[in-house]
Amino acid sequence: MNSEFGLIARYFTRPAPAGFLGVGDDCAMFPVAPGHHLATSTDLLIEGRHFFSDVDPAALGHKSLAVNLSDLAAMGAQPLACLLSLSLPQIDDDWLQGFADGFYALAEASGCPLIGGDTTRSSGGIVISVTVMGQVRPEHALRRGAARVGDDIWVTGTLGAADIALRLLQDRLPPNPSLLAATRPALERPSPPWRLAQQLAGVAHAALDISDGLAQDLGHILLASDCGAELVYNALPIAEALHGLDDALLQDAVLSGGDVYQLCFTAAADARSRIEALAHDASVLATRVGAIVAQPGLRVMGPDSAIIMLDHAGFDHFS
Amino acid sequence: MNSEFGLIARYFTRPAPAGFLGVGDDCAMFPVAPGHHLATSTDLLIEGRHFFSDVDPAALGHKSLAVNLSDLAAMGAQPLACLLSLSLPQIDDDWLQGFADGFYALAEASGCPLIGGDTTRSSGGIVISVTVMGQVRPEHALRRGAARVGDDIWVTGTLGAADIALRLLQDRLPPNPSLLAATRPALERPSPPWRLAQQLAGVAHAALDISDGLAQDLGHILLASDCGAELVYNALPIAEALHGLDDALLQDAVLSGGDVYQLCFTAAADARSRIEALAHDASVLATRVGAIVAQPGLRVMGPDSAIIMLDHAGFDHFS
Repeated sequence: MNSEFGLIARYFTRPAPAGFLGVGDDCAMFPVAPGHHLATSTDLLIEGRHFFSDVDPAALGHKSLAVNLSDLAAMGAQPLACLLSLSLPQIDDDWLQGFADGFYALAEASGCPLIGGDTTRSSGGIVISVTVMGQVRPEHALRRGAARVGDDIWVTGTLGAADIALRLLQDRLPPNPSLLAATRPALERPSPPWRLAQQLAGVAHAALDISDGLAQDLGHILLASDCGAELVYNALPIAEALHGLDDALLQDAVLSGGDVYQLCFTAAADARSRIEALAHDASVLATRVGAIVAQPGLRVMGPDSAIIMLDHAGFDHFS
Repeated sequence: MNSEFGLIARYFTRPAPAGFLGVGDDCAMFPVAPGHHLATSTDLLIEGRHFFSDVDPAALGHKSLAVNLSDLAAMGAQPLACLLSLSLPQIDDDWLQGFADGFYALAEASGCPLIGGDTTRSSGGIVISVTVMGQVRPEHALRRGAARVGDDIWVTGTLGAADIALRLLQDRLPPNPSLLAATRPALERPSPPWRLAQQLAGVAHAALDISDGLAQDLGHILLASDCGAELVYNALPIAEALHGLDDALLQDAVLSGGDVYQLCFTAAADARSRIEALAHDASVLATRVGAIVAQPGLRVMGPDSAIIMLDHAGFDHFS
């Protein structure tokens, strides 16, 4: 480690929970509960590619962890710990303090303590690598291949806002400050339902997190589970700020907009009241949006009962 | 994931071991043995900073994992699995094939399967992030703070070669092709003693891997264990290729040269024959090089019985 980066220790070293070994040895260590497997995922975020250079550092710290927590949620795993590696072109104390504040706030809220990582000087832009580790009983894990014909399809939270915010920030839509203000939190501070997700393990069947758009992501479940799906467009939980938008734009944002970091999951019809109760207890919106069917492919029943055609990149192998 | 990076799946997807869930779901999953804790470490490698742009990609693949396995070894942990994230400026099939070959060869040899990761397009140079996970009984883990007065100090492998290779490659020494040929493997293909390390858990006391130089790294054990050390210079295992070098240069390379990725560990004197047998069985050179003492600080008894003064960066807080 470059000596000047020693000062980063100031921002990223907080006491580890009891029973954990955190920063300061060759490895971090922590226990995994009996009967559980370790679940892990990692994401690499590159300045200019995954985030804007001028993004609020606290929001970036939050999102860096949130996108990884979203992967744990998609397995029904309980967060245990995370690692953070940062490559920075220079030391900027305000930036570091903001990033650390945003990261730690979510780490503490989600019970996912930061226990290790690496820091280095970058020759280019900022690079952020986060690894999360959680635990889940393997027989309860929400695997992509576990959907069954007749399952309900559920979505948590709302759809479309992050995509509209991204379009506004990239000038792909005419300037609209009030719409940007209403949608930007969905893009910059996604809030994956990690508490509900743990409760769904053993209750739901298949799950994944919506990162590339509902249609494309649901397609991964259909492929892995060798089945099809019918979605009811009017049942989809559209973010409130989007009401009144042009129909074609709205439909595209809701079905194909990414960066959602909410869950799409399937569950048997007899689990409905259980799921509604769990979602209520976790203060998470959970909406039934369709059903798993035997016929391969994804069909979306539009507002006028016509089938919406989907031709987005990555989706053509389902058509 | 950028669609063009889908082809990376070709290079980095191999079947996961039985009982493991590998690439293809939201998380990878694997079991941790009862009574063990999960041990984890991560390293970020940046082109131009941690490796030369023209380094052999197979050697780079090897080293990216080796430096992380070295951290597991330093805890006495058994490797279980690893994650690899790559950010690349473009797709170069030859480079990817070479990197994957080097990475997988070590992953397979060390029983540390690659079960997940992330790939993305870089706007700058190559960025490599590796996370390793292993298991160790927490009461047997080789912690930095576990050295006891009277312990022997041991070093595995040999010292100095990687540092001399780095100096030659950076033109900090006059060109010497035969010396470079003899020392370069130590720099580019470090071989941490992961098998022996697992056997040392429960036998040795403190350990760490030598990445920043023996003197500086041993200093971390002394600080954490609140003790001092005496090393005998003539006992140090100097790489054979270095014999004949100028004394001052040799001494600097051996005591302060980094990139060694061998272990420095301490153990009670009554464990000597056990350690020698374990090292022999693992085909690893293990050498007693000194002792832990109560008096704080590190003293190195030089060839002429005079004490060698150490004034390297990072070491002044021990003087």
